[in-house]
Order: sequence, then structure tokens, then C-alpha cells
Amino acid sequence: MKTIAVILTDMFQDVEYQLPVVAFRKAGHTIVHVGLVAGSMVKGEYGTPIHIDKAVRAVTAEDFDALFIPGGYSPDKLRIDPDAVRFVRDFFTKEKPVFAICHAAQLLITADVLKGRRVAAWMSLVQDIKNAGAEYVDKEVVVDGNLVSSRKPADIPAFIHEALAKLS
Amino acid sequence: MKTIAVILTDMFQDVEYQLPVVAFRKAGHTIVHVGLVAGSMVKGEYGTPIHIDKAVRAVTAEDFDALFIPGGYSPDKLRIDPDAVRFVRDFFTKEKPVFAICHAAQLLITADVLKGRRVAAWMSLVQDIKNAGAEYVDKEVVVDGNLVSSRKPADIPAFIHEALAKLS
Repeated sequence: MKTIAVILTDMFQDVEYQLPVVAFRKAGHTIVHVGLVAGSMVKGEYGTPIHIDKAVRAVTAEDFDALFIPGGYSPDKLRIDPDAVRFVRDFFTKEKPVFAICHAAQLLITADVLKGRRVAAWMSLVQDIKNAGAEYVDKEVVVDGNLVSSRKPADIPAFIHEALAKLS
Repeated sequence: MKTIAVILTDMFQDVEYQLPVVAFRKAGHTIVHVGLVAGSMVKGEYGTPIHIDKAVRAVTAEDFDALFIPGGYSPDKLRIDPDAVRFVRDFFTKEKPVFAICHAAQLLITADVLKGRRVAAWMSLVQDIKNAGAEYVDKEVVVDGNLVSSRKPADIPAFIHEALAKLS
């Protein structure tokens, strides 16, 4: 059983957070909510409230087995925080599994970890992903090394399937 | 007196839309709201309702003297529409004034018009702008050829000043 950091802040996409987290917990894994301020509450686009367990500046990739980044507009807000960017980059340096859906790729671009990778993401990011030196793949899920990525809510079942495979 | 297209859809940043539009109208210019569906209503992040006058697929840069792109999450939604991207690109091809604030630069990246340019934008886009071949400039307003760009709501007075200068 593994410990998964979920990094998120306000305006995360509710379903992209909820369904994977339910599946990860059902499989016996532990979820830790990592955000900007420990003890604060953040809200999804559709109002889902989440309690932030740990501040991102107080944790490292060493503390977790994997990282999950839900989409929505949360990644746009997280990518301006240097600690969040450093935390995400650490998972790639240590080659630990990273699960990224929809707008999550924005955080990966700022962390500068996409060069030469194959990535699925929300279609608004196609040009940003190509400009970051990666290949945009229009498939429901793409596995490239430690990175599992998907485009949108409809892809969640395939995304969960490949994420669980990385954790087994 | 000039005719300015404002391109926007849901979740535009309310103040970044309102203050420039008030200033443009006060200076005697005409505003046309261009969006995805003519006759539809769109809403700002804070609820401002706007009636869309023209569908972007039914207009060209020929119909206007300048383009204004407010920020917020509206540009993220517009950049997946090929007609919106083509419309924005046309203003650059014809070297007509473009006023872009905050997240507006996302639409410019997809339109592939930033190579070699100096641009101000919301700080979450720094890496996307560099990857697009442009120089990110951390100033309240940057004028580079036909493009006037600013970072955020606090920059609006300087943004309006330079935009009005381009229209005179």
C-alpha cells in the first residue's frame, strides 16, 4: 500500500479529483492533500471542499510514493508557487509515479519536465505542450516512464486503470 | 473614432474587461462583443453578464480597427476554437492594434504570433511565453509593434493609457 500526495488548490476540477481518489483509497492507498497553506480549506470548481493536510513547502517527494495532480484551474494557480514547482519536479528527478490529468500539464511545463515526453492533456494546452518540447498525444491515457497522463473527465476510468498499475 | 472587437467567453476577468471598455467608450470608440455564439450571454468570473453581438466565425479583422482580449479563464476556453484563433492571428497579419491583458497571452500563443516579441502577461504564463519564443517582460505595460500587453488588474490604468495611444 502506497502514500499518494494530491497537490491542489482552489478551482480544481471536482470529478477529476474525486473519482481517482475514491479508486486509490478503495485499492488501499493513503491520500495526503498537499496545498499552499496547511489546515486551510480549498474548493473545487463545483464547490467540493477539501482540507489541506500539508503545506507544499514543508514536504518533499521523499515523503510520498506517488503524486496526483487533478485538473481544472488549480494548476494555473499552483504553477506560480516556486515550492509547488520544486515539489513536482522532485517526483521526476526521483522517477516516482506522477498522475496528471487535464490542465495538470501546466504545472509540468513550469517544472520543465516534459522535454521529449509523450503527454495527454486538455486540448487548450496543445501548443504549450509542443512548445515545451513534448509530443501531444490525443488518447485517453498515455504512459511514458513515470508519467501517466489523460485529457479530460471522460478519460478518468482509463487514467485510474494505468495509475493503479503504476502503484502495484 | 474606432471600432474595437472585444473577444470573450465565460469566466473573463470582470474588471479587466470593464475598466478598459468604459475608457474606450468614453474616448468615443465603439465596442463590439465577439464570442462563440451570437446572441448568447456570457458571464465573468464575478458574474458580469455580457451579450455577444457577433460570432467569431462570422467576422474578420477587416471588420475592426483593433482587438481587445480580456483575461481570466476566457482565453483558455477560446483557444480551443479554431475560428477564434484565426481571428486573433488576422489582427497580427494585418498589423492592427491588439490589447492583451493577463491570461490573454494564451490565445496569442495558440495563434503563434509571439515569436521574437516582448510580452507582459499573468505570471503563471512565464514559461509558456518563453517556450513560445517570446521575451516575458515583468512591467505594467509593454508596447511591441501592434501589441499592447499587461500583467494583471493593477496594471489596467497603464494598459488603458497605451491602448488609447494606439487608437489615436
